[in-house]
Amino acid sequence: MKPSYSVMANHLGSSAVRDILKLTQGSDVISLAGGLPGEDLFPVEAVREAYSRVLSGSSSVLQYGLTEGYLPLRERLSSRLARQGIQASPDNLLLTTGSQQSIDLLCRMLIDPGDTVLVESPTYLAALQVLGSYRANIVAVESDNDGMLPDDLERKLTAHRPKLLYAVPTFGNPTGATWSEERRKAALELCRRSDTLILEDNPYGEIAFPGGERSQLPSLKALDDASAGDTVLYTGTFSKIVAPALRTGWITGGRELIATLARAKQAADLHSSTIDQRALAELLSFFDLESHIALISREYASRTKALSAALHSAGWAGASFEEPQGGMFLWLMLDPSINTTRLLPLALDRGVAFVPGEVFYPGQPKLNAMRLNFTHTPPKQLPLAVERLGEAIEEWNSLAGTPAL
Amino acid sequence: MKPSYSVMANHLGSSAVRDILKLTQGSDVISLAGGLPGEDLFPVEAVREAYSRVLSGSSSVLQYGLTEGYLPLRERLSSRLARQGIQASPDNLLLTTGSQQSIDLLCRMLIDPGDTVLVESPTYLAALQVLGSYRANIVAVESDNDGMLPDDLERKLTAHRPKLLYAVPTFGNPTGATWSEERRKAALELCRRSDTLILEDNPYGEIAFPGGERSQLPSLKALDDASAGDTVLYTGTFSKIVAPALRTGWITGGRELIATLARAKQAADLHSSTIDQRALAELLSFFDLESHIALISREYASRTKALSAALHSAGWAGASFEEPQGGMFLWLMLDPSINTTRLLPLALDRGVAFVPGEVFYPGQPKLNAMRLNFTHTPPKQLPLAVERLGEAIEEWNSLAGTPAL
Repeated sequence: MKPSYSVMANHLGSSAVRDILKLTQGSDVISLAGGLPGEDLFPVEAVREAYSRVLSGSSSVLQYGLTEGYLPLRERLSSRLARQGIQASPDNLLLTTGSQQSIDLLCRMLIDPGDTVLVESPTYLAALQVLGSYRANIVAVESDNDGMLPDDLERKLTAHRPKLLYAVPTFGNPTGATWSEERRKAALELCRRSDTLILEDNPYGEIAFPGGERSQLPSLKALDDASAGDTVLYTGTFSKIVAPALRTGWITGGRELIATLARAKQAADLHSSTIDQRALAELLSFFDLESHIALISREYASRTKALSAALHSAGWAGASFEEPQGGMFLWLMLDPSINTTRLLPLALDRGVAFVPGEVFYPGQPKLNAMRLNFTHTPPKQLPLAVERLGEAIEEWNSLAGTPAL
Repeated sequence: MKPSYSVMANHLGSSAVRDILKLTQGSDVISLAGGLPGEDLFPVEAVREAYSRVLSGSSSVLQYGLTEGYLPLRERLSSRLARQGIQASPDNLLLTTGSQQSIDLLCRMLIDPGDTVLVESPTYLAALQVLGSYRANIVAVESDNDGMLPDDLERKLTAHRPKLLYAVPTFGNPTGATWSEERRKAALELCRRSDTLILEDNPYGEIAFPGGERSQLPSLKALDDASAGDTVLYTGTFSKIVAPALRTGWITGGRELIATLARAKQAADLHSSTIDQRALAELLSFFDLESHIALISREYASRTKALSAALHSAGWAGASFEEPQGGMFLWLMLDPSINTTRLLPLALDRGVAFVPGEVFYPGQPKLNAMRLNFTHTPPKQLPLAVERLGEAIEEWNSLAGTPAL
């Protein structure tokens, strides 16, 4: 039987990243494509200990839990966020299946078809997918390396009266860029004045490389709380600072809105895994997470440097990038003559994968950009990955102008 | 800031069950309200062992996984389903955060506002909530204790050309009733002829009490597979046969539709907890799940009998019920003069909770029904719960006709 799909189904694009990941699984391709943290750094001993402690307790740990999530984890999270300048009481936090679910639930409760959402360009691919599935009118605000341009933001707030502004202002995906403090304040003030909610997506903010001048900027949410606002909804996750498999994220914001998201979550899946939430709460009771984050940040900093050094010595004509100060991604621009989507098959033939930049653009894409992940590949392999990429670029250049491209 | 919600948010009702559960938490109320399995029966030792084994492996167990779910669990599930007459290959199974998420994802991919969905009346409350949030036109098909009436089903298939028929045909929620084999075949044939998909929700089917004459009926999906159809989508869960906290359910059906649901799940939350999925796969490798299911079925059968015996000896005027042959619920009709929604506060005062029947009806409710759960309360307390309920009914009767009601 041929199903008759909903309009939403017909607006749900497939994911290039996903298809690429499938292509490279189990092969000898070095993949700089996925947004994967380094497996060698996962605190697997501590995680095992945490589950063991949780499951040594009463069998009631296996019962249904609250839609909002396991209260002691929300309490610990509330304390952690307080140290980051964010005021989120436990009953104002909703635990979700990764921050991806926070984005989805928020869109579900806010976005009707045609509602405008302002975004950076380029921005997080899976957020674009979610927004597209709710048929949002996605409008890009002009940005530079310091964040959204206030003039353009103000113009678009006035012209579109958007429901939401979505951004990854710290060590962003895909560009790795971080908004300056001035731009943060400007965006917050403009959105507040125009009654526009902001969803600040901050999965990478804590992965700040030592000595980076933008390592310690306040989140938009911290700036918002300082002025007693509830303009900013803030979503984060344990995926990058502990491990992704536990699928535990959270969202906090205005109380009524969080309660509404909890009702949406109840309909969506009743609640997320409480074993995982209990294990995380237990982990936070005996494991020094702050030292662990410092450890992975140092290690990722050295991987960035390895990638950056290899790219500098490759010295491809027309290539440029900013070295990220945190997070998981480096955004590489190649010579404008190179189309990275069409370069990808050549690169895969040589044994290296990346994500072509164009998938991250809500509108007119730059065709010569690519996103490189530096956290998952063993650092020793990074020079080889760059070498293979260089061979693919050489091949591109030798084919340029021929029908083979 | 006052958020401006989506139309969907305004169609998302709150849950009476949820509010009641919150009321009774931590109090000395005996709650027959929740749909909770018996905690004393959870295989907590085996679950601990399973997590321990999983987390003794490589740290890659903590990495991101496939949206479709952990492959070895899908393989084991496929074998289990095959023994139940259901042909679901591993790549035709999507693992979800409980079967609730299966319902939600399917609605998301099929239902546009105004599309008709046929349901039993009464039916599973949280399915009604999901359908309501997608603004489905929910139409009840007339049913008796043997299932949907074929004549009425045929009429409504013709009149409404529905997108979907949703049902819990085995040990249903809330009534505990089970469709006869004839009615199963009739419903399947009618839906097939009219190209209408069926979502068979079967969380309770394996909890079949020994000796019940309807304990071994084929699922609609098994009947469908026998005739090489893909009319039936089938969702199940480990929540009732292992434990709810692992939040692991599944859905299977036509290949293209399952692939579409996977895309929807990717946007919704990337994937469910793979630690939980790995632990379940491990559990199935060393734990005798079939014996465990037999054990809980025997125990739940004896709890049903305890509740049933207490109700019979109470002998309230006008009360009636069918003793369920499986599952987790007993559906009690009181004298038509009693409104169970208004009885609830009196019952809570006496220290017993139930779910008033009217919340389970998509349309015109019966006001004198209630759903009683017999799996969660310690069996020794069941007579006391019935005694308290009797006191509340007495109080109702003594107040009847006065303004106090």
